[in-house]
Amino acid sequence: MGLVDHESRPGRAPAPISELGKDPRLDARHAVLFEPLQVGPKLLPNRFYQVPHASGFGTDRPRAQAAFRAVKAEGGWGGVCLDYAPISRDTDETPEVGANLWDDQDARALAISVEAIHAHGSLAGIELHHGGAESTNGDSRNHRLAPSQVASAQTWAGLAKEMTVDDIERVRADWVRAARRARDVGFDIVYVYGAHGYLLTQFLSPHTNRRTDGYGGSLANRARLFLETIEAVAEAVGRDCAIAVRTAVHGRDGLPGIDIDDMLGFIGLADPMVDLWDVNVGSWPEDSGSSRYFPEGHQRPWASRVREVSSKPVVGVGRYTSPDLMAEVVRSGAVDLIGAARPAIADPFLPRKIAEGRLADVRECTGSNVCILREEAFDRVGCLQNPSAGEEYRRGWHPERHPPTVTPDTRVLVVGAGPAGLECALVLGRRGYRAVHLVEAEDEVGGKLRWMRRLPTLGDWGRVLDWRQVQLDQLPEVEVITGRRLSAAEVLEYGADVVVLATGSRWRDDGVQPGRPDPLVGADLPDVLTPEQVAGGLRPRAGRVVVYDCEGYLVGSGVAELLADEGSEVHLVTPFPVVSPVSDHTLEGEHLRAHLHRRGVRTHRGITLDGFDTGSVWGEDDLGDAWRLPAGGLVLVTQQTSDDQLFHELSADVEALRDAGVVALHRVGDAVAPRMTSEAVFDAHRLARELDSTDPSVPLPFLRERVSLHEEDRARRPGRPGA
Amino acid sequence: MGLVDHESRPGRAPAPISELGKDPRLDARHAVLFEPLQVGPKLLPNRFYQVPHASGFGTDRPRAQAAFRAVKAEGGWGGVCLDYAPISRDTDETPEVGANLWDDQDARALAISVEAIHAHGSLAGIELHHGGAESTNGDSRNHRLAPSQVASAQTWAGLAKEMTVDDIERVRADWVRAARRARDVGFDIVYVYGAHGYLLTQFLSPHTNRRTDGYGGSLANRARLFLETIEAVAEAVGRDCAIAVRTAVHGRDGLPGIDIDDMLGFIGLADPMVDLWDVNVGSWPEDSGSSRYFPEGHQRPWASRVREVSSKPVVGVGRYTSPDLMAEVVRSGAVDLIGAARPAIADPFLPRKIAEGRLADVRECTGSNVCILREEAFDRVGCLQNPSAGEEYRRGWHPERHPPTVTPDTRVLVVGAGPAGLECALVLGRRGYRAVHLVEAEDEVGGKLRWMRRLPTLGDWGRVLDWRQVQLDQLPEVEVITGRRLSAAEVLEYGADVVVLATGSRWRDDGVQPGRPDPLVGADLPDVLTPEQVAGGLRPRAGRVVVYDCEGYLVGSGVAELLADEGSEVHLVTPFPVVSPVSDHTLEGEHLRAHLHRRGVRTHRGITLDGFDTGSVWGEDDLGDAWRLPAGGLVLVTQQTSDDQLFHELSADVEALRDAGVVALHRVGDAVAPRMTSEAVFDAHRLARELDSTDPSVPLPFLRERVSLHEEDRARRPGRPGA
Repeated sequence: MGLVDHESRPGRAPAPISELGKDPRLDARHAVLFEPLQVGPKLLPNRFYQVPHASGFGTDRPRAQAAFRAVKAEGGWGGVCLDYAPISRDTDETPEVGANLWDDQDARALAISVEAIHAHGSLAGIELHHGGAESTNGDSRNHRLAPSQVASAQTWAGLAKEMTVDDIERVRADWVRAARRARDVGFDIVYVYGAHGYLLTQFLSPHTNRRTDGYGGSLANRARLFLETIEAVAEAVGRDCAIAVRTAVHGRDGLPGIDIDDMLGFIGLADPMVDLWDVNVGSWPEDSGSSRYFPEGHQRPWASRVREVSSKPVVGVGRYTSPDLMAEVVRSGAVDLIGAARPAIADPFLPRKIAEGRLADVRECTGSNVCILREEAFDRVGCLQNPSAGEEYRRGWHPERHPPTVTPDTRVLVVGAGPAGLECALVLGRRGYRAVHLVEAEDEVGGKLRWMRRLPTLGDWGRVLDWRQVQLDQLPEVEVITGRRLSAAEVLEYGADVVVLATGSRWRDDGVQPGRPDPLVGADLPDVLTPEQVAGGLRPRAGRVVVYDCEGYLVGSGVAELLADEGSEVHLVTPFPVVSPVSDHTLEGEHLRAHLHRRGVRTHRGITLDGFDTGSVWGEDDLGDAWRLPAGGLVLVTQQTSDDQLFHELSADVEALRDAGVVALHRVGDAVAPRMTSEAVFDAHRLARELDSTDPSVPLPFLRERVSLHEEDRARRPGRPGA
Repeated sequence: MGLVDHESRPGRAPAPISELGKDPRLDARHAVLFEPLQVGPKLLPNRFYQVPHASGFGTDRPRAQAAFRAVKAEGGWGGVCLDYAPISRDTDETPEVGANLWDDQDARALAISVEAIHAHGSLAGIELHHGGAESTNGDSRNHRLAPSQVASAQTWAGLAKEMTVDDIERVRADWVRAARRARDVGFDIVYVYGAHGYLLTQFLSPHTNRRTDGYGGSLANRARLFLETIEAVAEAVGRDCAIAVRTAVHGRDGLPGIDIDDMLGFIGLADPMVDLWDVNVGSWPEDSGSSRYFPEGHQRPWASRVREVSSKPVVGVGRYTSPDLMAEVVRSGAVDLIGAARPAIADPFLPRKIAEGRLADVRECTGSNVCILREEAFDRVGCLQNPSAGEEYRRGWHPERHPPTVTPDTRVLVVGAGPAGLECALVLGRRGYRAVHLVEAEDEVGGKLRWMRRLPTLGDWGRVLDWRQVQLDQLPEVEVITGRRLSAAEVLEYGADVVVLATGSRWRDDGVQPGRPDPLVGADLPDVLTPEQVAGGLRPRAGRVVVYDCEGYLVGSGVAELLADEGSEVHLVTPFPVVSPVSDHTLEGEHLRAHLHRRGVRTHRGITLDGFDTGSVWGEDDLGDAWRLPAGGLVLVTQQTSDDQLFHELSADVEALRDAGVVALHRVGDAVAPRMTSEAVFDAHRLARELDSTDPSVPLPFLRERVSLHEEDRARRPGRPGA
């Protein structure tokens, strides 16, 4: 019988969260992270704090929300917050999904999460939110509200209402009502959210607050609503909840027209009413900076300055995954609590693993921001590192527990040790399959990430490989064999009952691109290369290099930067209206474009290439006009194609498979269809979880939370708002 | 007592739908539209057919869906279809919301709509859908499926799975299962959807189908899955349902690599199995072409060609709102049924109004495609003409019935007769307010639409004004007074109990733009104009004109085209990465950009202007580099501002209001905050509906359909898919 529950061995009940610091395996250097901390009327059991962040579940999918948060409490996060929580119909973020607290029914939906978090001994927090001019109000269709009728950014071809004094009073009262709802369902920590450019920031900033009444002008006036709101919320929830305030301390994009001294002045004014400062830096793309452009702990210098004016606990984020650094940051007094959103998604059990001295088991966040992409684009959080993220309720997946297989003696051969193959073998091993072989053709595991991680700025993506290699080393059931390229005949002779092909994908060398099924003219010329060829060391012989990017994500920009760093004159040509539009979903777009610009990469947008000859590329612009650029070489980042030759050879001869004793042939990841790496890992994980189901080739249905059709649940329109 | 239900006078029961053709008021020329039509086993009561279209309600909001569709049946549409209905987890359109028919629980949710449609005597249709490579599968995370692994367009940095024969069989079986579910809950018409670039189209097109097996190659092979699917669905539902097939007949963007002769060949092959052909043209932006670029009936030449190969009924769309044209199209034999999506949203009662000879009452679709914008961007359909669209369940609004006021004697003064003022006065009149005065400062009603409708391509937007003027003419309770600009003192002296300010907005002349609260350098120079000034006849004195567009919708492009048509050299400069990004949400973007290009308008994207002097504009590009362009004149389409001076004067003196007997002072529309015109109309309608509520300044809550929290509704994960 294989190891069923690899981390928490059977018979050993997990330690309560308050006892984690007493684990004998805990490294003394990290003990500071397990000291409890009083936050107003509440005691946080340790220094690990999952800050509020969107999941896409909001109030709409209350059970998915609860399961997603509960696993963090179970994993040792002493404080666990939900999504941002719009307080009224005036602040509706549709199509984004927030943890609306518009009425009591919303609160009842969120109570499921509170209960789930409390069950593990953690505190539950809720971030009361008003987006002001930044809300869409696409559901309520109410006027958006703002201190003044000036736009901080263009939203929906319109402007917000300049708030009257009545509006100000109503908003303050909405905040109080929402806080009471939160308290009544048991939240321990109630936020007044004043960061990321939302309403209270709009009041603070002289760029968006042009008022001439008592709420505009001086800093004290611009801070008035913020202060009044904190005071009103604190009064409303009394000693039942801790009051947290989230705000930015550093200007830049997040707080136009406000410098850090202004912010410290504000924090000093508010400090007596606040139990916890949750501080960050500037705009969201910087606050949640991706690993491509921001190092771990990049916010530390700013967060620590709050100490100058505050005596209250401070939580700061910075994509912390290193326990040494976390402990040092807390010991130094820079912050009291290690805040995390992304690292807690990548590894909900990060605190417990530190407590148990299992540092090598920490599944470190790659900083890819795929979590944000999935939440923003699909209303469902996901993760490159942790395929169970967001699937806790939907599919019943747990990041650390893998249900034992009912067929442990099935011998499984996994071909290809890229992200999908590694994940598949790992989960099969953890599920108790006794004989799993992972066979890789190259001398090194990694698949496409093997070369992608070596492109400029993409180093932290390598954590996908590193963590899985370390974990596989601990599983004797899984044998990893490199440098062996299996033919179809060798697969048949291998002696496996089940074969899983994870052979990946490659970039096409013929220049076939979206909407154009035929090869690019000149794609067969010698100075035309694929990304793999560039990564392998090939270079165009001379002259300007054009990188033609139809992917719109990271390979084109990575290759362009690599070549530019070597001194080539690089032009990135793309049919998209912006360079790397997918990066806008990971909050990387602006940084990526500025970064390439600084590296000297020239960009040409809206261009579709038709051909290349020795001397130039040509095509047309998005208005149909001819376009041409002198070029000596061309890198084609046009379209990927599955490496599925082995699959086709094997699946073509069903009898041979049967004769060889292979009862099932599967494919996972890019070998089926090239997608984002997170989806390849997900796909492999899914197959490994369901390999012993009736038909593993078809995913088991997942749970969907649906509107009740019961007549008694039919909503009645209440008489008055807020009643 | 005022007229409560203006159209259907009390005491007169509405005629059943089958009797509409017998109404003595029906113009004989239009009688053909009320002839019933046999469609397979079902009888359509007339020739008005609401084709399948997305509402944003899908299966997620079943009661909103039902109410939205029911009002069309009530209004006389003989066939009423729901949203497109993805048949399985392999075709999930997240974040778009479809009428998923993945399982029986989905079907039960849609049954509410079937019942509601049947209650009015109409037939209910459902469009079974498989998106293939165009699905996102953002919820299911399944591999997308396609005939071949080539991209028709780039979607999510990845490609679809090349379908195996097993996949093909599964998809066909999914189609059958979904059809049975539809039949079991009472749908009369079941579609096989093969248009708009989705799976079956992907098989038809040699651009996306590169297969070498029996499903690729010749047209017969590429049509095989489509034909097999129709056959399987027809077999499955037997004589219980009519089988409709929606497909495009004209190539262009929608069917790359297929000409109309191919399509007629396919239609001929399928014809014996089909009861109704629902035919359209090319890609969605052309099929649902906006009035700016496509005239009424633009699809007619293509739809009529189906007659050459088919003996079955045909439905075709084309934004038909003219009963003469509709009747002529049917009589000519071009189509049998007048298909409509947008005209049925703008006026659900269009058929009844024709039957009752009330042609002037038809609320004609403007072709703005705001319905699509609201559905795509916010998952909730809306309408520029019909503010009740999408609000039938949420707010209980009916397009033709307006609940009687409880305070009919309240005298209401509405100041400003733009779209909001007109709507407000109209609804107040219909609600039975006995004395409503609508006072307009200009000699003509219309507000901003007065000049916008005269910009090139925007003529049909004028229907917003025309319909309301005609309707107001029928309401003696409402007095419309033009050419009278009221001062605050005159408002106080007017004798009104309630004052509603609908004074609108104007474009700022100081060049303040999003993110830049200070005026543009040089905005006060003589050759710098606002859109209103251009519309009023002012022109820069000489040279090249720059239109600086920070709105990103229709005013910038309209002004640019106007000036270009007069012979000016026009450059449209915009900070957005594309020209008019909002138009991409109305499906107008590509057409708009190509149109401007043909008119000779040059465009510069990603440019933020800092200033103007006599001779040039300057600023920076989106990478921060300096940018300059010689220019003789500048039109500032930077930001709007509410015309709220009257409001501020009146609200500043509460005592004066009280002394004047004004018990309430309200604002609606752009006078509160400049937004899209649809939202201004909505806002005015909302206030008029709720003017006699306790606090009309705060919208009454709307109903939200929410996930059940009952323990017994907690989903259980089924054992197998499709089971």
